[in-house]
Amino acid sequence: MSSPETRLFLATTNEGKILEIRHALEDLPITLSTLREIKDFEVCAEDKPTVLENAIYKGMFYSRYSEAMTLADDTGLEVDALMGRPGVHSARYAGETATYEDNNMKLLQELENIPEARRTARFVCVMALGFRGRLIKSFLGTCEGLILTKPRGIQGFGYDPLFYIPALKKTFAELTAEEKNRISHRGKALERVHDYFQYSLEAG
Amino acid sequence: MSSPETRLFLATTNEGKILEIRHALEDLPITLSTLREIKDFEVCAEDKPTVLENAIYKGMFYSRYSEAMTLADDTGLEVDALMGRPGVHSARYAGETATYEDNNMKLLQELENIPEARRTARFVCVMALGFRGRLIKSFLGTCEGLILTKPRGIQGFGYDPLFYIPALKKTFAELTAEEKNRISHRGKALERVHDYFQYSLEAG
Repeated sequence: MSSPETRLFLATTNEGKILEIRHALEDLPITLSTLREIKDFEVCAEDKPTVLENAIYKGMFYSRYSEAMTLADDTGLEVDALMGRPGVHSARYAGETATYEDNNMKLLQELENIPEARRTARFVCVMALGFRGRLIKSFLGTCEGLILTKPRGIQGFGYDPLFYIPALKKTFAELTAEEKNRISHRGKALERVHDYFQYSLEAG
Repeated sequence: MSSPETRLFLATTNEGKILEIRHALEDLPITLSTLREIKDFEVCAEDKPTVLENAIYKGMFYSRYSEAMTLADDTGLEVDALMGRPGVHSARYAGETATYEDNNMKLLQELENIPEARRTARFVCVMALGFRGRLIKSFLGTCEGLILTKPRGIQGFGYDPLFYIPALKKTFAELTAEEKNRISHRGKALERVHDYFQYSLEAG
């Protein structure tokens, strides 16, 4: 049974994320709207100790701005040589107003004397589906890689130019959107979101 | 090149975990010892806000009791209807001296009025490899499932009798050690530990 009116509200203004989500769900009959279309909104604090909790609270918080199911995400980069940092602080690693470049520079500095074999890291992404202030379900995706000693590539955003996938011999910033969605933390979480909606739509 | 003297110290006294780890690494030429063989040891605090950090600090902390590489783990059960709880508190959910049964009872009580479709949960396991007080690498594994309304099965330990895998129509406590290792959070983390040692051994 088709449900042509299924709507999903994306609780983000980040164009990079919106593109990745749109791409991952494009084969489903879902109409997307985003936080960019909301004139005045309060920004949800991201002060929880885990990526999971940040995603959950964002999903619940932003669901007040839409009648639709609301999808929020939080992402962390966990670097072994930094004992899991920046983790939940990844987006603001170099400070509250840090640019992607500031964060990448800080990461390179902190890893300055760490040899390649010890630069292992993983990206963790949690997507949280909220509805009327409540959490419906969370979706997790992870991706293992290495932190390079200098940036490579111009695609993507955030730490993508430093995050290297040995099996592909490329950084995230050297992958097309399609290639990245197939293996990335957010891509894998989105695959689970996709399966959830596909199942719900099929079940009517 | 073979390294017959490779040794690994397991930073746990939990027989269930020791069996799972022994099984997962049995094809490798690694000699295992465990915390059970240490007469007097200080117990590492597990007070970090994330499963990752608890595992890392345990791996570093217990590496003082062995000259060998030291493998520690931490595990959390993240239940959507409880907004990610018990999470990092899973082992002591019903209190400091809680038994597995106490924890399972508390979980069932907290989910009392939650219908099946909303009882989604995931297990998260991080294994951390420490050496001489330092973290070498962390390994993550996850497993998605549902929390039943009453326990089923007698294998395994912890929350296993309540953790149901829809694709297998069984709880973790209804699986053999082999079946569980193939799909569980700890099994998947151990697969990564296995690959790490296999690669290191092959590289000499």
